[in-house]
Amino acid sequence: MPKAKVVLTDHPWPDVAVEQSIFDAAGIEFVAGPIEAQSAAAIDAMIEQHQPQGIMCCWAPVSERAIQSAADLRIVARLGVGLDNISVTTATARGAWVTNIPDYCVEEVSDHAIAMLLSHWRGIAAFDREAKEGKWNPASADLKRTRNMTVGIIGFGRIGQMTARKLARGFEVNVLVHSPSLMRSFHDGDELESRIRVAMLASIQLRADAIILHLPLTSMSKRLVNDQFLSQLRRKPVLINVSRGGLIDNEALLRALDSGVLSGAALDVIEGEPTPPREVMNRRDIVVTPHIAFSSDASLLELRQRCSEEVVRVLNGEMPVHPCNSPRR
Amino acid sequence: MPKAKVVLTDHPWPDVAVEQSIFDAAGIEFVAGPIEAQSAAAIDAMIEQHQPQGIMCCWAPVSERAIQSAADLRIVARLGVGLDNISVTTATARGAWVTNIPDYCVEEVSDHAIAMLLSHWRGIAAFDREAKEGKWNPASADLKRTRNMTVGIIGFGRIGQMTARKLARGFEVNVLVHSPSLMRSFHDGDELESRIRVAMLASIQLRADAIILHLPLTSMSKRLVNDQFLSQLRRKPVLINVSRGGLIDNEALLRALDSGVLSGAALDVIEGEPTPPREVMNRRDIVVTPHIAFSSDASLLELRQRCSEEVVRVLNGEMPVHPCNSPRR
Repeated sequence: MPKAKVVLTDHPWPDVAVEQSIFDAAGIEFVAGPIEAQSAAAIDAMIEQHQPQGIMCCWAPVSERAIQSAADLRIVARLGVGLDNISVTTATARGAWVTNIPDYCVEEVSDHAIAMLLSHWRGIAAFDREAKEGKWNPASADLKRTRNMTVGIIGFGRIGQMTARKLARGFEVNVLVHSPSLMRSFHDGDELESRIRVAMLASIQLRADAIILHLPLTSMSKRLVNDQFLSQLRRKPVLINVSRGGLIDNEALLRALDSGVLSGAALDVIEGEPTPPREVMNRRDIVVTPHIAFSSDASLLELRQRCSEEVVRVLNGEMPVHPCNSPRR
Repeated sequence: MPKAKVVLTDHPWPDVAVEQSIFDAAGIEFVAGPIEAQSAAAIDAMIEQHQPQGIMCCWAPVSERAIQSAADLRIVARLGVGLDNISVTTATARGAWVTNIPDYCVEEVSDHAIAMLLSHWRGIAAFDREAKEGKWNPASADLKRTRNMTVGIIGFGRIGQMTARKLARGFEVNVLVHSPSLMRSFHDGDELESRIRVAMLASIQLRADAIILHLPLTSMSKRLVNDQFLSQLRRKPVLINVSRGGLIDNEALLRALDSGVLSGAALDVIEGEPTPPREVMNRRDIVVTPHIAFSSDASLLELRQRCSEEVVRVLNGEMPVHPCNSPRR
């Protein structure tokens, strides 16, 4: 029987030594694609050529066609949390597991959101840019006392809960949290713990000085932040997105900044990445990081180890630890 | 009897309406200098010309000569905390009060230090600079999980205590705190509250992943961070200064960054401000903000009101609320 084979479609870290050593030890052939995510057509061709039993992907699209073309496919393992780049229904129909690593970067993404929030209220990135231009102008500062602020968090999974706790316990800010599932169990204004209250979207739009997006991209949440959503904001909040670019309508965002409905934005994800629109990247009232909120030395090692081990587990005939579908058999 | 007169030497905010209205209501003449702090000679001339009973200063030097030249001087009121720009001994000998506002910006400075810390560990300012250059390179990220870190805080007054609590309660990091007065009452390793421990400087140098300076500039603390101090660091920490530029030897800082002893720095204050050395301002491994850590809409209003009221109080013959000396009578 030939060796099982795993294809890694993309890896936004410099080398694949961690993955290689785990597959070597398991006697599994391992093929690593390039660092950057390629087009769907390029991924399709790669999968068709190698005929892997396992696919590991970070951000590269794993299409219906790619999944169909691997005759003996048994697992598509996401190096991450969201599944929006994987044709899950095709994998399910083909009898292949889809897995993710739901909790490897809870600390990192919540840290990143708060780092962006504090950077905005304290002017860190904006004034550093001015310093690099030779300016030293303290009189232009328009900064905020964090403790006086109200922060709205949309999405209340592991990461949203962690961000809420760090803000409430560390900075004693008022936190309003919203998610569809929260609204099925609680009412607007219910206190979950000290300084963390459930809120309707309308309450967040009315009262928040900052809005943090911590929700998955689905057909329901796509372009949640559009002209209509933004028109309801009342306190010129800063908008922070550390989830998926597709949650925000870029054009509507630019209009809201131009009209002063938003005081700024901080985006770790932008629709159009890895080449987001220049008119978003270049604005001085938008702080941009390149989809790194998940990343730290600790989280990356954990992600790469756990995802490789999940693939080995399935190829050895065991159940996955983090299944995201129920494959037909 | 002529009206009492107050001179404001400098004001790093756009207008002086708050101060003007308080002095108008008290029947005191009010003369505002320029926004930017002028030279000692310029301030000396301004004081000699106006012969005020009260001087309010932010960062401008209020020299022995200035204080001597105002024949009926009764108060030098610092718009801030530190007194390093005021000749306190001269004021004391002349029988004039020196006052400050010790607690108006505790929230702001601690927020600012943490904003700089998180910006470093999450790459916010550095990656935003790259984004503005058109780059999108997540694979270059070298970020940290905050919870795994140890933060050393030097100086444990109101602000140091607040930063320690925000980090320990919000992010559950290990915090090591040091000050001369702490070392008189505690031993290295004593726990003050959960995750906050007293430490000798040597322990901080050995164990800290970040060092935050929260201490006043005095003859004892001047250039505390010099070649000798930096040579004892072991974990490539980031160095954060939100106190006074004179605490750090700029040349030694640059050498430590070049040799990799420090992983970076974030400076709200730099020796040589308001025109700090370009080789400090321009470095990509130093994030710079222009002495704004004290500033927010809330803190500035509080500072300006309380300082103006303190001056009115003394000119009306009452005791100051925040005396920093015991004037000879």
